[in-house]
Amino acid sequence: MGLLSKDIKTMDDLFVHTLQDIYYAENQITKALPQMIDKASDPQLKQAFQTHLEETRNQIKRLEQVFQQHGAEVKGVDCPAIDGITEEAQELMGEVEDPEVLDAAILASAQAVEHYEITRYGTLIAWAKELGRNDCAQLLQQNLEEEKATDKKLTALAESRVNRKAA
Amino acid sequence: MGLLSKDIKTMDDLFVHTLQDIYYAENQITKALPQMIDKASDPQLKQAFQTHLEETRNQIKRLEQVFQQHGAEVKGVDCPAIDGITEEAQELMGEVEDPEVLDAAILASAQAVEHYEITRYGTLIAWAKELGRNDCAQLLQQNLEEEKATDKKLTALAESRVNRKAA
Repeated sequence: MGLLSKDIKTMDDLFVHTLQDIYYAENQITKALPQMIDKASDPQLKQAFQTHLEETRNQIKRLEQVFQQHGAEVKGVDCPAIDGITEEAQELMGEVEDPEVLDAAILASAQAVEHYEITRYGTLIAWAKELGRNDCAQLLQQNLEEEKATDKKLTALAESRVNRKAA
Repeated sequence: MGLLSKDIKTMDDLFVHTLQDIYYAENQITKALPQMIDKASDPQLKQAFQTHLEETRNQIKRLEQVFQQHGAEVKGVDCPAIDGITEEAQELMGEVEDPEVLDAAILASAQAVEHYEITRYGTLIAWAKELGRNDCAQLLQQNLEEEKATDKKLTALAESRVNRKAA
């Protein structure tokens, strides 16, 4: 069981709670990505997801380091936000038949996931700095940079190939 | 009832479905913001939410114009993503007692909402252009710019005041 929100009394509690939230989210993403790789038709899109799956596994290890550096137990807490985002993605994936329209839908879903991570890491980095944990901020910054790079790669793919083919 | 995902056969269907998704999301946000205004203590944060509530009402009108320009019926479709994001925000708001920690939590929740909108508008603009609907893209771009400006304002607030006070 994670930190319950009623136990959040200080900025430190809020930082740990949000760390547990993104830890849960990253773990959910490693479960969602294989299905996205499987359903995608475009080879560049498949490859982008494959690369991101490996990155995500590394990001989870970095989060475990952050927990340890901060002296907190490594654990996740339910995150209705990422559950909602992945539920919406799965709903679309199960129903769209045309492979090129499906690629566009999967790509958009993946970008929604990336943006959730971008906002959470941005918040966590600001709070880590406020709490004087520049060591934690540095690790979180590495995750943030990877998420931003993935989002940029997906935008380029969306603009250049997938959508043009599907239209 | 909105367009069911099983009815999504073309990029045009996907565009309309995603328009219904963000239309529902913006309407949910007009319901969530008054509570955030009420719970926030920092006057600048309160003011930022108040301004954004007025902007959101305008954004809804712009979305209605996009539906009309595109010849689609104005309607929303359930969006588990925004429901999850706002559920998480409400869970935190109900439980954190310290007003300055609460401000930091509300601000972070609001940024998660902004990032969801940013990614959806980015996607919709790309698809509108692919579909040759530059008129729709232009209206959606106005909403995107406002969301980005709000996110930037919230980041500045987070970095400068709220978090420093709460730490």
